[in-house]
Amino acid sequence: MAVELKDLTKRSENYSQWYNELVVKSDLAEQSAVRGCMVIKPYGYAIWEKMQQQLDRMFKETGHVNAYFPLLIPKSFLSREAEHVEGFAKECAVVTHYRLKNDPNGGGVVVDPEAKLEEELIIRPTSETIIWNTYKNWINSYRDLPILVNQWANVFRWEMRTRLFLRTAEFLWQEGHTAHATREEAEEEAVRMLNVYGDFAEKYMAVPVIKGVKSANERFAGALNTYTIEAMMQDGKALQSGTSHFLGQNFAKAFNVQFVNKDNQLEYVWATSWGVSTRLMGALIMTHSDDNGLVLPPHLAPIQVVIVPIYKSQEQLHQIDEKVAGIVARLKDLGISVKYDNADNKRPGFKFADYEVKGVPVRLVMGGRDLENNTIEVMRRDTLEKETRTCDGIEQYVKDLLEDIQANIYQKALNYRNARITSVDTYDEFKERIEEGGFILAHWDGTTETELRIKEETKATIRCIPFDTFLPGDKEPGKCMVTGKPSPCRVIFARSY
Amino acid sequence: MAVELKDLTKRSENYSQWYNELVVKSDLAEQSAVRGCMVIKPYGYAIWEKMQQQLDRMFKETGHVNAYFPLLIPKSFLSREAEHVEGFAKECAVVTHYRLKNDPNGGGVVVDPEAKLEEELIIRPTSETIIWNTYKNWINSYRDLPILVNQWANVFRWEMRTRLFLRTAEFLWQEGHTAHATREEAEEEAVRMLNVYGDFAEKYMAVPVIKGVKSANERFAGALNTYTIEAMMQDGKALQSGTSHFLGQNFAKAFNVQFVNKDNQLEYVWATSWGVSTRLMGALIMTHSDDNGLVLPPHLAPIQVVIVPIYKSQEQLHQIDEKVAGIVARLKDLGISVKYDNADNKRPGFKFADYEVKGVPVRLVMGGRDLENNTIEVMRRDTLEKETRTCDGIEQYVKDLLEDIQANIYQKALNYRNARITSVDTYDEFKERIEEGGFILAHWDGTTETELRIKEETKATIRCIPFDTFLPGDKEPGKCMVTGKPSPCRVIFARSY
Repeated sequence: MAVELKDLTKRSENYSQWYNELVVKSDLAEQSAVRGCMVIKPYGYAIWEKMQQQLDRMFKETGHVNAYFPLLIPKSFLSREAEHVEGFAKECAVVTHYRLKNDPNGGGVVVDPEAKLEEELIIRPTSETIIWNTYKNWINSYRDLPILVNQWANVFRWEMRTRLFLRTAEFLWQEGHTAHATREEAEEEAVRMLNVYGDFAEKYMAVPVIKGVKSANERFAGALNTYTIEAMMQDGKALQSGTSHFLGQNFAKAFNVQFVNKDNQLEYVWATSWGVSTRLMGALIMTHSDDNGLVLPPHLAPIQVVIVPIYKSQEQLHQIDEKVAGIVARLKDLGISVKYDNADNKRPGFKFADYEVKGVPVRLVMGGRDLENNTIEVMRRDTLEKETRTCDGIEQYVKDLLEDIQANIYQKALNYRNARITSVDTYDEFKERIEEGGFILAHWDGTTETELRIKEETKATIRCIPFDTFLPGDKEPGKCMVTGKPSPCRVIFARSY
Repeated sequence: MAVELKDLTKRSENYSQWYNELVVKSDLAEQSAVRGCMVIKPYGYAIWEKMQQQLDRMFKETGHVNAYFPLLIPKSFLSREAEHVEGFAKECAVVTHYRLKNDPNGGGVVVDPEAKLEEELIIRPTSETIIWNTYKNWINSYRDLPILVNQWANVFRWEMRTRLFLRTAEFLWQEGHTAHATREEAEEEAVRMLNVYGDFAEKYMAVPVIKGVKSANERFAGALNTYTIEAMMQDGKALQSGTSHFLGQNFAKAFNVQFVNKDNQLEYVWATSWGVSTRLMGALIMTHSDDNGLVLPPHLAPIQVVIVPIYKSQEQLHQIDEKVAGIVARLKDLGISVKYDNADNKRPGFKFADYEVKGVPVRLVMGGRDLENNTIEVMRRDTLEKETRTCDGIEQYVKDLLEDIQANIYQKALNYRNARITSVDTYDEFKERIEEGGFILAHWDGTTETELRIKEETKATIRCIPFDTFLPGDKEPGKCMVTGKPSPCRVIFARSY
C-alpha cells in the first residue's frame, strides 16, 4: 500500500477534506461496514493507548479507581431522569431480541420472534443511570463516601452525520462517576477533573485549551453545571475536548440514593461525572498536522524517533546496521521509543514520506558519507528542518530535541489561537467576524432565547464562560450585543465541531 | 459494610455456594440489574487490570499490536461462515431500532417503530466476521502479511444460566486475530499463543494448566483446530481457561480474502484467533482460595502487603505511623504495592478479617510492644502462619516471602491436580471415578458419537488431547473404553464449568 502523499488535499483548499484524507492516509482509522462505526487501526490505537495510560495515571493520582458496569441499560432506567432521557432518546441503539434462528423459508438466519425481550435494552450512550442504580446498594452512610470510580468503555449514540474520531456512533471513552456527601465536595471534584483534562491536553497533547463553564443550553442532560475544555482547530472552529459535570442530586433522587450523614440525618448523595473520548484524537490531528501529514507531540507519539539507512551495498548496510544498533540502544536507555527501519523492500524516499505522513517527531538518516564522518542527519517533523550532526552524544541531543518539539508545537498552537481570539461589541460586527473563524468574546444577556437566536442566525454557539481573562475587560460587565440587556462578563462564541 | 466472615459457606459443604458468596464478600463483583450482566467492582477490576497489563506485555513481546473493531456486526456477516453462525445464533443480542420516542399514550419512552433498521445488527459474540471483512481491504500481497492484531473488548453471548466471572452474558476479553501467508505459520502462531496463555496462567496466576487440543466436537465454531489450557478447580472440575484456534482458510473464504503469494499466485489467507476473558478471574478464585476467603497470587494482587497498627493512644499511633512510614517507603522502593491502614474508625480485628477475605498475600502488624522491640508481626495469607521478626531488613524479607507464596500456592495447586489425575481402562470404572471429580485419562475411539454418549451418560466431556504425558503409558495406543475400537492415545475427561 503506497503512500500517495501528493494526493493529500491542502488545508487551505478544503480543511474538512484534508482531515478526512489524513486520518485514512496516516493509517489511524477507517470507516467500517457498520454505519457510523469506525475501525481504529493499530497506529491510531497506539496513540489512543498512550492517551489512556497517561489519563489513567492522572486519575489514579487523584484517588480514583476503575470498575466496569454493564453495556446494556434497561429502557426504564433512562426515563428516570427527565432531562437525561430527553437528551439521549433520539440516538439510542435498542436491543429487542436475544436469539436468531434459521429462516424457515431458507433465507439464512432471521431474528427469532419468540425471543423478544419483555423490556428493551439500550446500548449505553453514557452510564449515569445504570451506575446510580448500582450505587444505591453501595451507599448507606457518609462512611461509604466518597466513591471515586472511573470506567474505560465503549458507548453508542446513533449519530446521523459521522466523521472519523470527531463524531462516530460507537466511540471509546472513559467516564468518571463520583458520589459525595456534600455539594461543595462534588463541585470541587468536577473542577478538579476539568483541571486534570486541561493539564493532559496541554502537557501531553500540546493542545492549548480554554477552561470554563457551559451555558444552560449546552449543559449535559441532567447536569446542574457542565465544565468544559475548548480547543481551537486550524480552521478557527472550536472542538469541545472534554467535559466535567456537577450533577447535583439529580441522579441520586432519580434512583433514590440516600445516605445517613454525620448528623444522623438522611440526605441525597451529590454526584459528578466527567469524560473524554476518542474525539481527542481528532483534536490532536487537527491542532498540529500540516499539508505533509500528521505532526504528533513527542509525549504521545508511538514512535518518537525513526532511523533510516541509505546504502549502496549490503556490506555498507551491515556497517550502518552496526553503527545504528549502538544509537538505538542508547536512545532506548533514555526511555525513547525508536524504530530502525532497514527493510530492503522499500526505497528511502518512500520511507521518508511514510514517516512524515505518520508524524514521527524525529527522523535520523545515516548514509555512507555519515558512516565515514561519524555523523547523522537529523530532521524534526514540526519544522521539517534538517541538520547533520556528530553521532557523539546524539541520544541526549535527540532527547532534548523531543522536548523542544513538544514545547514548540504547543507554543505554535497557542500563538495561533491567541491571535484568533477577538472581542466585539455589536452584533453586526459579530456576524462579520464569525465568518473568519476564531473565538469571539462578546456580551450576552444570559438567556437561552438569545443564545438560540445567535446560533440560528450565525451558526455560532457559546463555547463557555471562561475562567480566565483572555482580553482586557473580559470580566467587566456590559450589555448584550443582541438585546442590550445587562451582561456580567463576556463569553466565548465560536462555530464548532 | 461489615465483613461477616462467619457467614461464608465452607467449600466442603457447598463448593458452588462458597464461590458465589466469596466473589461478593471479597468485593470482586456483583450481579447487575441487567440479566446475566455483572458489575466488576474496583477490587475485582484492579486484579483484571493486572492481568491485562501482563498479557498485553506478552502479546507485544510476541510482535502483536492492538486495534479496535466495531461492537455491532451486520446479521448477514454472521451467516457467511456456516459453522460459525450455527455456533452463535442462539445467543445473539439483536439491535433492531435506533431511536426511542415519547409514548403518545404518556407511558414514558417507547421504541420508535419508524426507526427500524433495514438489517439487524448483532452485538459481537466474537469478532472474526467483522474483522475478516475488514482484513479484506488490508491484504493484497504477501508483503501485507502477517497481520498480528489483538483487541481488548467487551462481547455478549445471551447465556441462560450465568455465574459471576465464570459465565456472564457480557464479558471482557481480548481476542487476537492474525492473518498469515502459509498454513504452517498460522499453525505455529496458534500454538505460540497457547504457550503464552500457559505461561501467564502458571507464572502469574499460579494456576497449573494442561495444554492440549480439543476434540472435533469441542472446537470453536469455524476452527480447524482448537488448542486449550485446562485448569482443575478445588472440586475436581475442569475450567477451560483460554483457547487458541487455527481457523485454516475458513474465514478468508467466507469473506473472500485473497493475496498474491511470492509465486505471483492468488491464494486464500490463513488465520488464527485466540482469547482469554474475565473467566480467568473465576479460575484464579477457585484454584487458591480457602474457607477464610481469597488467596491471591502476589504477582497479581492489587495490594501485596497490608500494614495494620495496634495502638492504645493517639500518641502511640503517631509513633507507629512514623516507624511504619520508613518501612512503607522501603517496600515501595522494591516495587511492592503496600497499603498502611491506620484508619481509626475500624477495629484491628475487622481489618484483619477484611484483608483476609480479600486475599492480601502478606499482613504486617505493629503494636506497642513491637515498637519497643523494633519488631513486627508477619502473617502470610496462604498458610496463615504468623511470626514476629526484627524490622531490620524486613523489606527484603517480605519481598522474598512474596515470591515464596507465589511458588507455594502454585506447587500446592499442582500437587492437588496431579493427585487427581487418574487413568482408567473400563467404562464401568470411569463412571465410578468420575463421581469423585478430577481428570481421567482414558482411551476413546475418536468419534463424536462416542464422545456424546459419554457426556450424556456421565456429564463428562473430553477436555483435551494433552500435549504432555501425565501418567506412564498415556501416549501408547489402546482400545476405546466404550466401544473397544482402536485409540491412538489416552485423552483427558472431566466434568467442567
